[in-house]
Amino acid sequence: MGGDHGPPVVVPAVVRAISLLPEDVRFLLHGDQAVIAAALARQPAAARRIEIHPAERVIAMDEKPAQALRRGKGTSMWNAVEALREGRAAAAVSAGNTGALMAISRLILRMTADLERPALVTSIPTLGTTFLDVGANIDCDAERLVEFAIMGEAYHRAAHGVAKPTVGLLNVGSEEMKGHEEVREAHRVLREGKIDLDYRGFVEGDDITRGAVDVIVTDGFTGNVTLKAMEGAARFMGAELRSALFSGPLSSLGAILARSALMKFRERMSPTPAAPLLGLNGIVLKAHGGASTRDFTMAVQLAVDLARSDFSAEIERNMRRLPDALAEPAPAGAIEANGVTPHGAAPQGARE
Amino acid sequence: MGGDHGPPVVVPAVVRAISLLPEDVRFLLHGDQAVIAAALARQPAAARRIEIHPAERVIAMDEKPAQALRRGKGTSMWNAVEALREGRAAAAVSAGNTGALMAISRLILRMTADLERPALVTSIPTLGTTFLDVGANIDCDAERLVEFAIMGEAYHRAAHGVAKPTVGLLNVGSEEMKGHEEVREAHRVLREGKIDLDYRGFVEGDDITRGAVDVIVTDGFTGNVTLKAMEGAARFMGAELRSALFSGPLSSLGAILARSALMKFRERMSPTPAAPLLGLNGIVLKAHGGASTRDFTMAVQLAVDLARSDFSAEIERNMRRLPDALAEPAPAGAIEANGVTPHGAAPQGARE
Repeated sequence: MGGDHGPPVVVPAVVRAISLLPEDVRFLLHGDQAVIAAALARQPAAARRIEIHPAERVIAMDEKPAQALRRGKGTSMWNAVEALREGRAAAAVSAGNTGALMAISRLILRMTADLERPALVTSIPTLGTTFLDVGANIDCDAERLVEFAIMGEAYHRAAHGVAKPTVGLLNVGSEEMKGHEEVREAHRVLREGKIDLDYRGFVEGDDITRGAVDVIVTDGFTGNVTLKAMEGAARFMGAELRSALFSGPLSSLGAILARSALMKFRERMSPTPAAPLLGLNGIVLKAHGGASTRDFTMAVQLAVDLARSDFSAEIERNMRRLPDALAEPAPAGAIEANGVTPHGAAPQGARE
Repeated sequence: MGGDHGPPVVVPAVVRAISLLPEDVRFLLHGDQAVIAAALARQPAAARRIEIHPAERVIAMDEKPAQALRRGKGTSMWNAVEALREGRAAAAVSAGNTGALMAISRLILRMTADLERPALVTSIPTLGTTFLDVGANIDCDAERLVEFAIMGEAYHRAAHGVAKPTVGLLNVGSEEMKGHEEVREAHRVLREGKIDLDYRGFVEGDDITRGAVDVIVTDGFTGNVTLKAMEGAARFMGAELRSALFSGPLSSLGAILARSALMKFRERMSPTPAAPLLGLNGIVLKAHGGASTRDFTMAVQLAVDLARSDFSAEIERNMRRLPDALAEPAPAGAIEANGVTPHGAAPQGARE
């Protein structure tokens, strides 16, 4: 029922996904029974793989998360996540209110990671680079950054079929001593290799669109601002390009001749249609509010890829390695420290 | 002597600036006397307004700041900043090593603000939005963010002639409770109005290229990553656009016809040629290492604009208001708190 369009986009997208996916993939559609049934009326083949689960209420796109939690029970979104917890579904997809979906998913499914909220992931257009957290967890210590690395790596493998994705940590420079304490500590933990990841070290802002690594990790504040700034820059460039191209008759003719190339370009630059909420006991995908039928079909396919993959178990394996990896390294002993030790505190062996 | 090109760019730029600037603007050129004199040989008119100050040594572009401080004395960069401290110059411009210029300027001129290092400013192409700190001060408390607002606003007025620039604070959303503690506290201080600024509240990443406000303030970590990400996104889009345009004969013909428009577009997107180091007792400008003659001419003109403006005094005035503005607001008394007070701790007056 969610998103800017609701059933007129979601139902045709599910019908389309059914035609593309194996026979054993089935769907529960939560929402207004009459509306969904009407949309399915001329799709008997697809309808056989769909169960409609009536839900009388809907969470509005502008509802606050706290309000969604209070009055969420019995809404289509709540029921979809509830079906996941009860094992009746393997993944949930929604184009609805992001904040509400995060809050309801956290409440019903519980977090596996030590996060305020599920981490938000995005994929950089064209390159498919996985970038997280893009806004859910504002304050991040080293542990959270490492958790993002673990979850983002497993997600990237499941979504893109890359056997061993490479991981980088976003920073202001590539040298060891750069950045704030949290990022330097996360770098130490990831570099030591106790977490099973192909960690490549620090990356910088311009590496996001360079495809330097498959997975780029940052805190939710930096990730949110950076992603929006990049989207803004792309929009700004597009507008400037249009105004430059149509500034004179010759360039306008050129623009018309190059029209299909410019449209292809625009399509390649458009953001990914769906992203998982990471750190939950269950697979929940958030499709863009303005998702088209094609976008929502892709979101459904991504949900199936994730549900069929080993990604939850992989995350769990690496998460179990985390406490040991986070433990402080043995401090450099007083003995090695140029032989200089505080008077009276020198270990016996150092005296000789 | 600095930058990727040295005197072959700097000397012609100064000659060009002299032809554009009033008679009373004069120049001290620090560096290799023979090289500079040769470059000036056929410019007798300009040479009359230039003093060459021989400096035998140069700071390399890849020198570490600590090393530059140790062996910097007597280099062209050191002497240029020293002339500023001694009152022999009103502003210093360099295309050299940024880290070295920051360290040497801080040592010789001293900071006025409570910063690790001078703040780095950039101007967003086309719009001229002032954006800081873009990488010098990684850890920023509320006080530093407010200092950036004060300095950025005064800079924007001096550089762009805007009487009352508008100021925004970069955050993940525009609501009061969004973001981390530092940004919310800086918001409180700026909103209360004790600092003389036209503060417009929180702005988001995509507002940077929207021209929502004249001055956008953030910490050096977020600013550095965001700026590089935007530059990367612009480069990436440019490359994708080229490959889309030349993907077929019709679109290639279109691209050729639109060539001048595309070049104009590219020029409008290129970054600003120079930025001041803010927070110093003196006006120091860093020109882009790869600055062209035209870029360096603009850097010199900007230095003159700043030196002639009231900007240092304006910053000082607002900085003096800072301690009072930062003081915690009076806490809400127990009496007003719905009359509920801990048993036995209620003030006498509240009992009636």
